[in-house]
Amino acid sequence: MADVPHVVVVGGGFAGLWATRALASAPVRITLLDRGNHHLFQPLLYQVATAGLSAPDIAAPLRHILRGQPNVTVLMGEAVAVDKAARNVQLANGTSIAYDTLLVCTGATHAYFGHDEWAPHAPGLKTLDDALAIRRRILTAFERAEAETDPARRAALLTFAVVGGGPTGVELAGTLAEIAHHTLRKEFRNIDPDNTRVLLLEAGPRVLSTFPEALSAKAMRSLARLGVDVRTGVPVSRIDASGLMLGEERIDAHTVLWAAGVAASPLARTLDVPLDRAGRVAVEPDLTLPGHPEIFVAGDLATVKWGERLVPGVAPAAKQMGSYVARVIRARLTNQAAPPPFGYKDFGNLATIGRRAAVVDLHGFRFSGYFAWAFWLIAHVFFLIGFRNRIVVLLDWAVAYWTYQRNARIVLGREQK
Amino acid sequence: MADVPHVVVVGGGFAGLWATRALASAPVRITLLDRGNHHLFQPLLYQVATAGLSAPDIAAPLRHILRGQPNVTVLMGEAVAVDKAARNVQLANGTSIAYDTLLVCTGATHAYFGHDEWAPHAPGLKTLDDALAIRRRILTAFERAEAETDPARRAALLTFAVVGGGPTGVELAGTLAEIAHHTLRKEFRNIDPDNTRVLLLEAGPRVLSTFPEALSAKAMRSLARLGVDVRTGVPVSRIDASGLMLGEERIDAHTVLWAAGVAASPLARTLDVPLDRAGRVAVEPDLTLPGHPEIFVAGDLATVKWGERLVPGVAPAAKQMGSYVARVIRARLTNQAAPPPFGYKDFGNLATIGRRAAVVDLHGFRFSGYFAWAFWLIAHVFFLIGFRNRIVVLLDWAVAYWTYQRNARIVLGREQK
Repeated sequence: MADVPHVVVVGGGFAGLWATRALASAPVRITLLDRGNHHLFQPLLYQVATAGLSAPDIAAPLRHILRGQPNVTVLMGEAVAVDKAARNVQLANGTSIAYDTLLVCTGATHAYFGHDEWAPHAPGLKTLDDALAIRRRILTAFERAEAETDPARRAALLTFAVVGGGPTGVELAGTLAEIAHHTLRKEFRNIDPDNTRVLLLEAGPRVLSTFPEALSAKAMRSLARLGVDVRTGVPVSRIDASGLMLGEERIDAHTVLWAAGVAASPLARTLDVPLDRAGRVAVEPDLTLPGHPEIFVAGDLATVKWGERLVPGVAPAAKQMGSYVARVIRARLTNQAAPPPFGYKDFGNLATIGRRAAVVDLHGFRFSGYFAWAFWLIAHVFFLIGFRNRIVVLLDWAVAYWTYQRNARIVLGREQK
Repeated sequence: MADVPHVVVVGGGFAGLWATRALASAPVRITLLDRGNHHLFQPLLYQVATAGLSAPDIAAPLRHILRGQPNVTVLMGEAVAVDKAARNVQLANGTSIAYDTLLVCTGATHAYFGHDEWAPHAPGLKTLDDALAIRRRILTAFERAEAETDPARRAALLTFAVVGGGPTGVELAGTLAEIAHHTLRKEFRNIDPDNTRVLLLEAGPRVLSTFPEALSAKAMRSLARLGVDVRTGVPVSRIDASGLMLGEERIDAHTVLWAAGVAASPLARTLDVPLDRAGRVAVEPDLTLPGHPEIFVAGDLATVKWGERLVPGVAPAAKQMGSYVARVIRARLTNQAAPPPFGYKDFGNLATIGRRAAVVDLHGFRFSGYFAWAFWLIAHVFFLIGFRNRIVVLLDWAVAYWTYQRNARIVLGREQK
């Protein structure tokens, strides 16, 4: 195996895992490097944050997924730099891994638009650890409110503000409202969780801005029905330990969640190429780095033209990029013609709002409400990796649906704030 | 409700929860205080540590369990002292809670026999956070071994030492051997997990010393069959960052787990009464504090005579003590005769060793092997709190049984060591 080309894949998300699997029968040896030990089904991460699912439900060990693919070595480790001249990846532990071909797909993290001081007060949601920290914060807020005697402090503990009206923000706000108005009913003696205020703050004119306007409007109505106070058109100008400023308005909120900005993984900076405002790499039409055909960038880290727009940072796009990169690598190895430039196949756009409410946009075939929610649920469970995960997630949801309960309402770790 | 006596229960473990539930129809108001938000099914905690179950599988929010009992207020908070004169419990956040009757059942934590410097190198297993830290350590050791090129360091990474041959130590060692020899098979390219060394170190003459000798011997044979190297009769004299000293023998081990000593919760010290060597409170036959009939101590925190021996620190004993305390409180409220002194009803002793191996001692009716394992499994699932938990745990185990897989092999958080 040592004399076949060495493909190093950095990042075991959708792009990295799909590329790796698509190279199963290729004459290469692959090293898949990830800082965690698992592939994460990111579209359901908000369910871990809101105590609906437990962490192992939506994650599977990378080496277990790939155990049957002998040309892959999975390594847990953090890549900190790429040395294009020496053709190696440098790791946080001081070692390095040489590559013949490199695929960088370390994705995105959350960004605070230059306000990094907001980070400790408004955690974002990208990893399982983020999700458990948010879960702890949400559950602890209700616990503290129950023990609090000062009415103003109690009100602040029962105020939850979600910043950012994209799919994640909408999911978080909708689920928070559900928890307050249904899940926790009858469990408290000193507070009424029904008095919880959930705010969804979007600086732009509407939530779910990537959807058609009619579906945005439907989503706003669904959110209002769930009791979410949606505020659009005013930016958040400050976030601190006790709340935030929405334009000129002060909102005291113990729990502020960040679902607004994303920034590309800092590894991109070490590629020494121009990056866009979010830190992403503008790649060639074949997803290679300009001037470096041996380096590919895929997934949320890459910006690729899609007609007038850019390929969106969603799971299907990352999978398609990963598979495409494998196709290019394979063509090179067998001296076949290079495949045509990467083209994104858009299967549609869906977002869930809460119990029995979602919006779906499948190429103009638009629907919302209960049927959209069922469609969303089936699609997500279908794509969830791992047979057991699917069963357990379905079971969790079935129980949650009938009982309004959430099965992972366990505070893990200590609150830092 | 304000003019009925206020019963404060500190600790939502088996003793506290059983006492609280048994007071459901009593003319009292109850405050149940716990530093977490959940009741933990401690007997299965080792399954979370060894990645078989996820944390929410074995825990349920206390306020959810008690939502239908209107005379209970559940509070999340940490009791740091009891003021017997003022009759209140002081909390870490500076507030205090006044009581008419107090039940202290904060249980035990692990103790290092005066070697507190061993704590960072040999984590113990008492809370969900402990379990997740141990899980992280175990899984990360295999990950690091895969990336390690130095043979000695690699061998140390693949050496796991469990200190203490009680039920927890036996369970941990047996499960570690199963993981190494079955679960991880075919998943690594540079190491063979089959070369893992699992040691079980017991200073006394035999493992499971509370069981009859014949069952101890069976357990030793089962462990040996699983590939566990059991060492009895020699105490651990040192634990450091890279391993331990077993008497005069140096053992390089990246992962050392502590299952040896327990010490009562430090809250006992603030009761200002004589404590035994492990910090436990010697209570009156009715489980009250000597000279303070308004204060009860139950569960692992209390030492109670049981013939020549002491009531063991096991879940059934804690539940019985909790129910007994409720009976005493009820009798006082209704001016009935006090119940007879607390008597422990021993239903038997069981310990599992690994896949299809367990030992059971039911009053002289002793058995081991597959049938004992099935008995252990049914008993534990039956007693697990919460309908959903039972189903999910059974499902996890069924899948694990047929596939040799473990469903929670997800590294959460960062390794500190």
